[in-house]
Amino acid sequence: MQPCELVLTRFIDHAAKWHPDREIVTATQDSTFRTGYAELQVRAGRLSSALTSLGVDHGDRVATLLWNNQAHMECLYACLGLGAVYHTLNPRLTVDQMARMVDLADDRIIAVEQDQLDVALALRQRCASVAHIILFDEGRAGPLDERADHDGVRRHSALLAAHPAPAPRRDLDEHSPAGLCFTSGTTSDPKGVMYTHRSNYLHTLTILQPDILGLSRRDCVLAVVPMFHANGWGLPFAAPAVGAKLVLPGRWTSGAALARLIREEAVTIAFGVPTVWLALLDHLDDAGGDLPALERIVLGGAAVSQALVDRLERRLGVVVQTSWGMTELSPLGTMTPPCDPDRAATQVGRPSIGVDLCLFDENGQPLAAQRGHEGRLKAKGPSVIDRYFGEDEPAVDGEGWFDTGDLAVLDDEGRLTITGRAKDLIKSGGEWINPVQIEQVVGTMAGIDLAAVVGKPDATWGERPVLVIKECDAGAVTDAAILQALAQTVPKWWLPADIVRLEQFPYASTGKIDKHRLRALLAA
Amino acid sequence: MQPCELVLTRFIDHAAKWHPDREIVTATQDSTFRTGYAELQVRAGRLSSALTSLGVDHGDRVATLLWNNQAHMECLYACLGLGAVYHTLNPRLTVDQMARMVDLADDRIIAVEQDQLDVALALRQRCASVAHIILFDEGRAGPLDERADHDGVRRHSALLAAHPAPAPRRDLDEHSPAGLCFTSGTTSDPKGVMYTHRSNYLHTLTILQPDILGLSRRDCVLAVVPMFHANGWGLPFAAPAVGAKLVLPGRWTSGAALARLIREEAVTIAFGVPTVWLALLDHLDDAGGDLPALERIVLGGAAVSQALVDRLERRLGVVVQTSWGMTELSPLGTMTPPCDPDRAATQVGRPSIGVDLCLFDENGQPLAAQRGHEGRLKAKGPSVIDRYFGEDEPAVDGEGWFDTGDLAVLDDEGRLTITGRAKDLIKSGGEWINPVQIEQVVGTMAGIDLAAVVGKPDATWGERPVLVIKECDAGAVTDAAILQALAQTVPKWWLPADIVRLEQFPYASTGKIDKHRLRALLAA
Repeated sequence: MQPCELVLTRFIDHAAKWHPDREIVTATQDSTFRTGYAELQVRAGRLSSALTSLGVDHGDRVATLLWNNQAHMECLYACLGLGAVYHTLNPRLTVDQMARMVDLADDRIIAVEQDQLDVALALRQRCASVAHIILFDEGRAGPLDERADHDGVRRHSALLAAHPAPAPRRDLDEHSPAGLCFTSGTTSDPKGVMYTHRSNYLHTLTILQPDILGLSRRDCVLAVVPMFHANGWGLPFAAPAVGAKLVLPGRWTSGAALARLIREEAVTIAFGVPTVWLALLDHLDDAGGDLPALERIVLGGAAVSQALVDRLERRLGVVVQTSWGMTELSPLGTMTPPCDPDRAATQVGRPSIGVDLCLFDENGQPLAAQRGHEGRLKAKGPSVIDRYFGEDEPAVDGEGWFDTGDLAVLDDEGRLTITGRAKDLIKSGGEWINPVQIEQVVGTMAGIDLAAVVGKPDATWGERPVLVIKECDAGAVTDAAILQALAQTVPKWWLPADIVRLEQFPYASTGKIDKHRLRALLAA
Repeated sequence: MQPCELVLTRFIDHAAKWHPDREIVTATQDSTFRTGYAELQVRAGRLSSALTSLGVDHGDRVATLLWNNQAHMECLYACLGLGAVYHTLNPRLTVDQMARMVDLADDRIIAVEQDQLDVALALRQRCASVAHIILFDEGRAGPLDERADHDGVRRHSALLAAHPAPAPRRDLDEHSPAGLCFTSGTTSDPKGVMYTHRSNYLHTLTILQPDILGLSRRDCVLAVVPMFHANGWGLPFAAPAVGAKLVLPGRWTSGAALARLIREEAVTIAFGVPTVWLALLDHLDDAGGDLPALERIVLGGAAVSQALVDRLERRLGVVVQTSWGMTELSPLGTMTPPCDPDRAATQVGRPSIGVDLCLFDENGQPLAAQRGHEGRLKAKGPSVIDRYFGEDEPAVDGEGWFDTGDLAVLDDEGRLTITGRAKDLIKSGGEWINPVQIEQVVGTMAGIDLAAVVGKPDATWGERPVLVIKECDAGAVTDAAILQALAQTVPKWWLPADIVRLEQFPYASTGKIDKHRLRALLAA
């Protein structure tokens, strides 16, 4: 059969040819602007030309310090067309944290919008590899920063004007590096995952399947999940692959902003971490209104309570698909199919073809009975990491399995439940307490929006669990009710030493509850 | 990312692990038997052991002279696990035709059931390469042929008994050959298409997409399309890839047999050529009854009339998906998505990612305007042929395009309509007449089930078109009504010289209308 490299530019080329007018919509503070796949392809090709003129070559890294918007899509495909590598930086990190990543990545270029220009200039000063800053200056209101044409800052509009023709496509091996993403790193050191054209291409075909995303041309996709969060969950590739309309919220992700965008663009499927949807629900409860076109919400990035799933499905009339993934898995591990009436919210579905999973015991042996027993979850597949970026040691064991660090159990039908993080376990009196099991019980109680359990140092026991909750309304649940519910399902010595109520949880930059800051908050 | 060869055994391994009890059901004359994916995996592995003991090695060809049944699935995966190649033979061909293919393929083994044993013995006598015949003798009623244990015919049950353990999986390069299928060859010489593990793997991921088959675990798939017809339309791989239930009709494909099977197994999606469904409709019109679980029918292999689509959708309450493909395309070219209310029956949908199409003029130049103009259709992709089996010359042009031989037009939305076969055009008075355009007009008329146009020699004009029809009921349509309908849409000199009514059309072995035999019939 024909030789045919699985390179990611095929997605934009396919969309430009067969779905030229399907839109990519970007939100601004109070409006939107839009383009089509055919125009996006041309603009990305012209940006490829500009990048070449700035010395970017095959394999070079280009950092994007951008929200989810059209510029970000153009940067990704401009890099891919050259065989350069997009490196999605998280704007919510500190300059120190970003500088470490830019140094590790050896980024040549930083692409920014004006709101991040200070950060980009600081990074260029600290990181020797950075030769140029590209400032995206189109489609914006207000005057341009006066530094836009100084200090080696190149305006995107001027670069495009100087490069009217798309760059010729570079012939690439499918194993070429394509994208770099650092893990959110709740532990100390960020680790880089380098995706290849092949790994992302196969990941795209995997997630399109009906039992996973089931994306089609008739869909309108809202990607609230940022591009820097675990490869943007694959959406920059999946949407053009099927010619779906793509809606990008920029940095306007409040409940009110999302409700307006979903309504005005007739979004059918929306992707984001649970806290985003909690804010949307709160807004709709206050302001009223419905989202009639919305059919599905895909949750990822954090465990989710039955209460939130029920509230979303009831209030919005949607189907909620829970999922489990990791930056190291591109990120899909498992997903609940659109139609599985038997599933519980704590379950995150089955793996699809392309992801293999296996549960292991504490000695590193596969569990003899894979169903119904908790084990340490390991993964294999063409879109699963082999080795962290820049490291010598493989990230897999001798049999090729990547250890996810998660504890999990499979039910009789093969549905996965993540039961904890091995490193989040609390050691009390020499025995392990699993915070996730407590969080699941409390999270499903009426009146509770969020629940998190962390350990606090204890002179007698070493550590004791503390439960932190956010109520739907103040005073919705008593401590006694919580302890009574827990007493029915967990051992007595697992019962929290304290129950703390917070109005606002601390979130990590990816939108997950930040247990590090939660511990610090409780200690203070 | 992890190295991971795209080999086809991943599909059965995935199904055995994650969907172990989803069924593969085989029809017999008056009953069914069934197994699950986990058992199928083990049985295929034991057959791999047996094949090894018979001298089958990596790259060797194994012919399957079987209907669609469990034995056929076991043979396919037994070959694939060893790196041997399945070669699906069409039992409806003559021994002469088959012998040519067996010689070209250099088949080592022929796998048969008892009803084809005579043919297999004749082939072994004529073809030097054939060392063994494997007779599938399980799940059948009646006494076994007395030659079953003589003449080097090996009983499948005895082979499995002698090989209780599955063969170890062979490590394979994804570019290894996997399957061999000869084109149905309405022209003289059959040509072989050799699929690789990679080409079939990628084809599988392509057809699973929501806008193509959209197969999911909850589906129950009826594969009436035979395995020997264009790679079984990819169903032997697509069904286990998602854990769908698979129903195989054996050689019992009458309307009555299919109606019973669809009803009893709660089939949700059924695949076959149009004539199969016409027989199903006729049966239901006679016998009454409904098929409430059936949601979709996928038509392929031949052009289809609006009347048939309407009749199927109305009578069965299903969505009909029309398609276009070729053995050389694995076979998917285009497919109408499950939801596209604007499409006409003559349209066959859009290509999905993984298939690229382009229309060319008669000088081999791409049409400047690809939409709205008829051109010669060429295809590219990782599941499109590069070179016919055993031939030195490539089957693609200098730019890598495979010429399908079809004429086609794309509408403004990118939907494809096949407008004719370049070689079926009729030359009358020095001008071309396109039979397909006449067939489409007549095929959409009320009262007409089938329509075909062929050329007949004419002393004055060289050739003149003859229209052959099958009416729903005798006398349903007059010649005058047909000619009047045609006069509104085709040039006057295209009007058929004769209109012939047939009760029964001649079909090629794949179920398509056989225009060669139709011409011979008219000449006689």
